[in-house]
Amino acid sequence: MKKPVIAVVGATGAVGEEILACLDERQVSFSKLKLLASARSAGRQISFQDQSLMVEELVPASFEGVDIALFSVGSGISKELGPVAVAAGAVVIDNSSAFRMDDDVPLVIPEINGADVQEAPRGIIANPNCTTIVTLMALDPLQRAFGGCERLIASSYQAVSGSGAQGIAELENQTAAYAKNEPLRANVYPHQIAFNVIPQVEPILENGYTKEEMKMQNETRKILHCPSILASATCVRVPVFRSHSVSVTAQFATEPSIEAARAALEAAPGIQLRDDRESAVYPTPLDASNGDDCLVGRLREDLALPNSLAFWVVGDQVRKGAALNAVQIAELLID
Amino acid sequence: MKKPVIAVVGATGAVGEEILACLDERQVSFSKLKLLASARSAGRQISFQDQSLMVEELVPASFEGVDIALFSVGSGISKELGPVAVAAGAVVIDNSSAFRMDDDVPLVIPEINGADVQEAPRGIIANPNCTTIVTLMALDPLQRAFGGCERLIASSYQAVSGSGAQGIAELENQTAAYAKNEPLRANVYPHQIAFNVIPQVEPILENGYTKEEMKMQNETRKILHCPSILASATCVRVPVFRSHSVSVTAQFATEPSIEAARAALEAAPGIQLRDDRESAVYPTPLDASNGDDCLVGRLREDLALPNSLAFWVVGDQVRKGAALNAVQIAELLID
Repeated sequence: MKKPVIAVVGATGAVGEEILACLDERQVSFSKLKLLASARSAGRQISFQDQSLMVEELVPASFEGVDIALFSVGSGISKELGPVAVAAGAVVIDNSSAFRMDDDVPLVIPEINGADVQEAPRGIIANPNCTTIVTLMALDPLQRAFGGCERLIASSYQAVSGSGAQGIAELENQTAAYAKNEPLRANVYPHQIAFNVIPQVEPILENGYTKEEMKMQNETRKILHCPSILASATCVRVPVFRSHSVSVTAQFATEPSIEAARAALEAAPGIQLRDDRESAVYPTPLDASNGDDCLVGRLREDLALPNSLAFWVVGDQVRKGAALNAVQIAELLID
Repeated sequence: MKKPVIAVVGATGAVGEEILACLDERQVSFSKLKLLASARSAGRQISFQDQSLMVEELVPASFEGVDIALFSVGSGISKELGPVAVAAGAVVIDNSSAFRMDDDVPLVIPEINGADVQEAPRGIIANPNCTTIVTLMALDPLQRAFGGCERLIASSYQAVSGSGAQGIAELENQTAAYAKNEPLRANVYPHQIAFNVIPQVEPILENGYTKEEMKMQNETRKILHCPSILASATCVRVPVFRSHSVSVTAQFATEPSIEAARAALEAAPGIQLRDDRESAVYPTPLDASNGDDCLVGRLREDLALPNSLAFWVVGDQVRKGAALNAVQIAELLID
């Protein structure tokens, strides 16, 4: 489509704001930009490029004339209003987990399976989980180079911004209380997050894994078109404001070499290899924050599994893990 | 031996102080306690039980009449003065990495291979690396239950107290600077540690692993008497003051069941199982701090490897990871 009408649904949230930043920076072509949010935020003015745009209340009628609707709201609202937007003629790009595992909804990381946007019979395209995006950005070039991925074992170090503005506020508040020698109160997370780590992101399921951890297996299989991949993740919240890090062991069909792995990562779009053993170069979450690329380091042969590599990947989960990836999907739809 | 003369070498350091606390709490039997430290600390008075003990300067002549010398100083001093202490008639229990991999020096976690203290021809017994101790405290009961461990993949979340008082000061200082909106300076670690994680503990070796990560493989093989174990670790420093956490995937010779794993952990000395999927019970580093036991949770079948379990273990690395383990070794020598 040419110069579409784009609606940003949840425009005043952390991801919504980042979507606006990405639309601006990337000079995405559109004829009109519509900002939608809850009644609470309606009426707010947001400056975008040389205009001041008013946030409108999100209602079923909001989607008239909209060509692309970028949803960054809870699963519940996505499930309710996504199909309404489609009925009004829009393609929905949804950031929630509402539709991700539906067979007739493509789950897309543009650098990896961008062509899947062509197969969206319901008019809905899903944006993957943030930790999965960061992990697969590094894993995909490697699995292409080494005959496919067979096994994946990952431990994450996830920033509080993954829980939105309230997660950031919780770490800020606890840090401020610590500095003032006052008691640290936990409101958002089940345990103190400042000066602590919490090995739980999302509810724990019957099999002992959390929802977040199961996304790593389920979404990886779908995005890589490889239902046989075995993936085990441990997702941990850490007192970092922004950018998720993942420690990954991946086993491939053929024997990887470090040289070929480096070459594959260096050639991969959206990836920066920051890896030098001698000079102790590797990325930290601070390095990835507010950037578009995922950063990879600590690349080495895994000592425990045959045909495998161990590596460390860091990405800004608000950007590539959410907003940027959604905007890149929109770009695939615009001529 | 009965009522030995015990020397604490490095008595004013973080581990030395904790050794004194453990000797007191555990009512370890001795005839005399000698506190040794560098010239800088000599002359300080330290109260122990109902006495006030003066710290003496550590010199080669310090070991006369000493039966057990607990060394918590750098590798260099251990290498130099450990043999001097032995020549004076002492058994040396060394916390550094100086002797750990020497064939004629047992490397001991009392709950696991306490009997190895009998084979110390050089009069030196080594205390393992802290992350390895915490990991093996949980792994050993499981590998005994399931026919031995074949593979181990671990990602750590290591507290700044692992770097001693200077690591704690670095996180304190950066946190204070953040609260005052001042620039955060990195002096101890190569990157900012407050609100960040650093995927490097100790120098990076030629094979891409750090020294700390290789200890996990090398020391695990020695402690478990199993040179065929394949272990791959990624060791990461996190902004936590005390207690290391480890996310572990372990593959066993036989198929593990969750019930048998729970039973093995519940029966294991020094371990507390804190694991309830339904009520989302699991341990965090804050829970383990200043305690003797290692805490295990998030126990589940690993989805990526056959015959394997995934779990999360947390332990106070100043206590069980260093001081307590050393004192427990001393107890094995005392009638």
